[in-house]
Amino acid sequence: MQPQEDRKRVMIEGVNPEIDGGRYPIKRTVGETVEVGADIFADGHDAISAVLLHRKETESQWTETPMEFLVNDRWKGFFVVNEIGRYVYTLESWVDHFQTWQRDLVKKVDAGQDVSVDLRVGAEIVADAIPRASVVDAKRLKEWATNLKSSRDLKDRVHAAADEALKLLMARYPYREFATRYEKELRVVVDRTRARYSAWYEMFPRSCTDAAGRHGTFKDCEIRLPYIAQMGFDVLYLPPVHPVGRTHRKGRNNAPVASPGDPGSPWAIGSEAGGHKAVHPRLGTLKDFRNLVSRASEQGVEVALDIAFQCAPDHPYVKKHPEWFRQRPDGTIQYAENPPKKYQDIYPINFETENWRALWEELKGVFLFWIDQGVRIFRVDNPHTKSFSFWEWVIAEVKRDYPEVIFLSEAFTRPKVMYRLAKLGFTQSYTYFAWRNTKWEITRYFNELCRSEVREFFRPNLWPNTPDILTEYLQMGGRPAFVVRSVLAATLGANYGIYGPAFELCENSPKEFGSEEYLDSEKYEIKNWNIESPGSLQGLLGRINRIRRENSALQSDWSLQFHPVDNEQLICYSKNTKDYSNIVLVIVNLDPHHTHSGWLELPIKDWGLEPTRSYQVHDLLSDARYLWHGSRNYIELDPQIVAAHIFRLRRRVRTERDFDYFM
Amino acid sequence: MQPQEDRKRVMIEGVNPEIDGGRYPIKRTVGETVEVGADIFADGHDAISAVLLHRKETESQWTETPMEFLVNDRWKGFFVVNEIGRYVYTLESWVDHFQTWQRDLVKKVDAGQDVSVDLRVGAEIVADAIPRASVVDAKRLKEWATNLKSSRDLKDRVHAAADEALKLLMARYPYREFATRYEKELRVVVDRTRARYSAWYEMFPRSCTDAAGRHGTFKDCEIRLPYIAQMGFDVLYLPPVHPVGRTHRKGRNNAPVASPGDPGSPWAIGSEAGGHKAVHPRLGTLKDFRNLVSRASEQGVEVALDIAFQCAPDHPYVKKHPEWFRQRPDGTIQYAENPPKKYQDIYPINFETENWRALWEELKGVFLFWIDQGVRIFRVDNPHTKSFSFWEWVIAEVKRDYPEVIFLSEAFTRPKVMYRLAKLGFTQSYTYFAWRNTKWEITRYFNELCRSEVREFFRPNLWPNTPDILTEYLQMGGRPAFVVRSVLAATLGANYGIYGPAFELCENSPKEFGSEEYLDSEKYEIKNWNIESPGSLQGLLGRINRIRRENSALQSDWSLQFHPVDNEQLICYSKNTKDYSNIVLVIVNLDPHHTHSGWLELPIKDWGLEPTRSYQVHDLLSDARYLWHGSRNYIELDPQIVAAHIFRLRRRVRTERDFDYFM
Repeated sequence: MQPQEDRKRVMIEGVNPEIDGGRYPIKRTVGETVEVGADIFADGHDAISAVLLHRKETESQWTETPMEFLVNDRWKGFFVVNEIGRYVYTLESWVDHFQTWQRDLVKKVDAGQDVSVDLRVGAEIVADAIPRASVVDAKRLKEWATNLKSSRDLKDRVHAAADEALKLLMARYPYREFATRYEKELRVVVDRTRARYSAWYEMFPRSCTDAAGRHGTFKDCEIRLPYIAQMGFDVLYLPPVHPVGRTHRKGRNNAPVASPGDPGSPWAIGSEAGGHKAVHPRLGTLKDFRNLVSRASEQGVEVALDIAFQCAPDHPYVKKHPEWFRQRPDGTIQYAENPPKKYQDIYPINFETENWRALWEELKGVFLFWIDQGVRIFRVDNPHTKSFSFWEWVIAEVKRDYPEVIFLSEAFTRPKVMYRLAKLGFTQSYTYFAWRNTKWEITRYFNELCRSEVREFFRPNLWPNTPDILTEYLQMGGRPAFVVRSVLAATLGANYGIYGPAFELCENSPKEFGSEEYLDSEKYEIKNWNIESPGSLQGLLGRINRIRRENSALQSDWSLQFHPVDNEQLICYSKNTKDYSNIVLVIVNLDPHHTHSGWLELPIKDWGLEPTRSYQVHDLLSDARYLWHGSRNYIELDPQIVAAHIFRLRRRVRTERDFDYFM
Repeated sequence: MQPQEDRKRVMIEGVNPEIDGGRYPIKRTVGETVEVGADIFADGHDAISAVLLHRKETESQWTETPMEFLVNDRWKGFFVVNEIGRYVYTLESWVDHFQTWQRDLVKKVDAGQDVSVDLRVGAEIVADAIPRASVVDAKRLKEWATNLKSSRDLKDRVHAAADEALKLLMARYPYREFATRYEKELRVVVDRTRARYSAWYEMFPRSCTDAAGRHGTFKDCEIRLPYIAQMGFDVLYLPPVHPVGRTHRKGRNNAPVASPGDPGSPWAIGSEAGGHKAVHPRLGTLKDFRNLVSRASEQGVEVALDIAFQCAPDHPYVKKHPEWFRQRPDGTIQYAENPPKKYQDIYPINFETENWRALWEELKGVFLFWIDQGVRIFRVDNPHTKSFSFWEWVIAEVKRDYPEVIFLSEAFTRPKVMYRLAKLGFTQSYTYFAWRNTKWEITRYFNELCRSEVREFFRPNLWPNTPDILTEYLQMGGRPAFVVRSVLAATLGANYGIYGPAFELCENSPKEFGSEEYLDSEKYEIKNWNIESPGSLQGLLGRINRIRRENSALQSDWSLQFHPVDNEQLICYSKNTKDYSNIVLVIVNLDPHHTHSGWLELPIKDWGLEPTRSYQVHDLLSDARYLWHGSRNYIELDPQIVAAHIFRLRRRVRTERDFDYFM
């Protein structure tokens, strides 16, 4: 045992946030706060002091901020992370003999006890601090010590002892030789703001076409950019843009055999034209791709690429690295399957391969290749079917040099696996949002995501639809269902996305009843969407995205709070900035078929509203304004008009006292 | 990175029990089970297997037990600890290619797919296991492999593939090269049964006297032993038996100045006659003490000693080791204080002393000294005012050679400090039980102690009174209050104790109104108790302790479960053995003044009782028997008769079918 260790009397435990005992970092974006809580206590009754320490991982100098005592041995402190990258934090605490002495002295004086010896004790404690102090402060401490020891008047000495100035001075020079440093250094990954707040638009480039059957190109996508930018989306996510395999190519509606001219699934990656580092020849060239990235950027839109680590049988890897795939006794390579389902157009990569090192390096190279083309956001396809260790490694490797890169985990699998991937480094994650329809389901799920420890490492990205998911709610609820789901996605989630134009055009025909696949799915054919169709939701989406931009309450998920409504079809929740200067209240009628009404109950006290005065709620969707009063208010929503309110609370309501001639 | 590490595909997390990330051991007693849960999963869809590993800390060989899959990636396993000492446990899991193959093959066959290549894949997996198998099993595996590969009839081969015998055989020889071993080895401290189940009786030896004013002796204590044993107590706890200091000795009722003849507080330890390794001359000799220990043991009673690490000013340590105490500028030693309260008869030890190593060794020597005298149970006074590191060290040191030693922590302080002391090694702990009176308070507190993670490290020992604590409930509730509190203590807590004879004689006069101190407290004077007083609870206590002995459900706290009663003054709870062969149901009227009645609701289904048949409840206190029916039953308790039922459930109720001539 270390001699020093054994005289350390302070214990630090129950530190929070701390993910899996510090095994994983927490996540923040630039400018956010890390609030740290801990149980801190010593034996006996001595006063203690505690500080929170933090530093950038690459720097050695710690910054200290004092922690504050709350209750029941619980302490709290915080720091702000101002740069992208990794931070480290830990805690330190010590028995504070000066504070103990000052506190006890006051009690003794109050009880009329003789404190002459105690004053001499205090003088010694103050004198001990002199060598630790600056020259100026040392002089002041010396004076205090003398004063405590030998002032003529005992009353003066007692006054000196309790002096706030002495307390502050001594707080600068505590005796920390036996301070306890928390045994762990905990980590924070700090991302750029878009990791926390983003609006995604997924689009198949090959369907950006003005004529049925013509294969769209990157140049066509450029023409589509203003449409996307005007709707207010800031991430344009493209499914794989690589050459598509020919062997076992799927036909329309996932037919096992393709007809001539069928383009195949973009996720069946690789042909003689190249693999994960090539673009499909019919989309254009790499230069065209880079141009698209630049044009998009000029309009405030960032291009995100799909990275799907799997290969069509024609992928160059299959010939060059057959050992990266699972061989069968008949000499064939094992295609993907989920028995009894077969995906013969796709070979999964075998992460148990002996040659895993080369494999990992090659896959890392895929990310770096696209980073070289200007991409900084990747949507990763099915990460849960690849090795966890690989993800932890590759994300860390990429972010070491490019800490601004964002990885979205597309894992629709079991909750613990989804959370694990987030812990391992994914910046954002898909969620079960698409299948959470009722008030009970939504409330329960989003309380878990936004109000439990999960939020420290898992950033939800909400999608009402994807090319694989046309939910039954959308199939059956008509246009109002699309309105409901877009309002929910965009306001429950600071990060959300839609798969368009299918979404804004309210496309809702399933392949067959009971299926969530689209009929004539774009995954297997080129579509020619009429984006200017009069029924399009493009105006609504544009408005919703503007509301998000103008209300910073909607740019984070941590303040989400559900409020009671006495009707199960009406859901009500709010988000607010920390200082409550921006409060957004959302009410949605979850029933796409019928008008519903009810009374809701709001925590107006928390919002600084007086129960006796009116306040204004301004519906940012319809621009209507209502005067409300107190915590209970009436709501009625007709899905045929608009199924939701997105209110901004406005405190000030004019009264006669504001009227010019009132006085 | 380790090449091997990176091909390990299984993740193990959320392991439970695991105290503070494995920093502290969990606790068990001999014969108990350790049930371990964990989240275990791999990427993709492969089947996995998992085992729980355990060993004694001193042995190197692990024992493996298979874990079972529950739901949502949760697995469970268990092992039994059969010896006193320390155990270690951890987990291991791997992707099981054979299981995956067998599971998928069945699905493919069911879907009518061609599985001829799959059968060859299986043959290879089976053949791979041959080198790992015993000679006999290797031969059998070879046969299976041949069979799978080359049986004439495909149907036979499919049958072979799905065969349970093959599955069992393969389960013996899994491929574990890429198995994931959980990164932590977690510890269990296994104590003897008395750590879990004990009934304590605290008694001042000097008051074991037959004449007022005569100082009792160890020999007098021997005479008192049958009284204690007949009541069924198995631990006799003695306050400090050392010489009592003279300087600043307290008088009766804690008077600042003692009168001549006042014996002083036994906790003011040490005089010219010796310190912590000496006995008070008026109690007798060390030999007398050892005799008492032996006599007690013969009657099934174990003597527990109070260890209070503090010194009277006359303690030999003060002269020999002045550096172990805090010096004041006037040359005096700092006495104990909690401003404005002063305890001038006691010097606390300064654990921040430079000479801490010698101090620690000396204090450890105190334990070893009394172990040499035959003591194996220590009640430790105010451990929370001494260094935490010291406790962790000294308890581990003592238990290394004497793992049977039990340490009871007397820390009535803040919850986190109490829990920390338990984590550091204390075998049992005092609780807030004395101050938990209402149904809500009791339910909440005991759910925390017995049903949360706390139970893994904190063993409650319930005391309705102590020499320092005469609760207001006891002061005001008369004899029924004592009955209520003894039933609660003895049935809520497998470990409980009373401070007698004050308790069984229902002594309830406080020093003054608002104080929890006894009037004429035994701490400051010799008492002469009339233990055969007719109002004594000795009969009741004897019965309660016999009930505890005869019903193993009451010998552990983990099964405690509260049941609803529609009257706030009636509390109802049960304990049961794991197999429900012994179920004890306790109902207490918490109001010592009035009769209360109500309906209670029991989980009879969990208990294996049919809702349509009657069952018997046998009141072990009154010996009355009741026929009950269904889950709702009526209860009425008059505190003037007896304020509680302790029912044993008896399933079998005789019916006409049991009657001799029924058929």
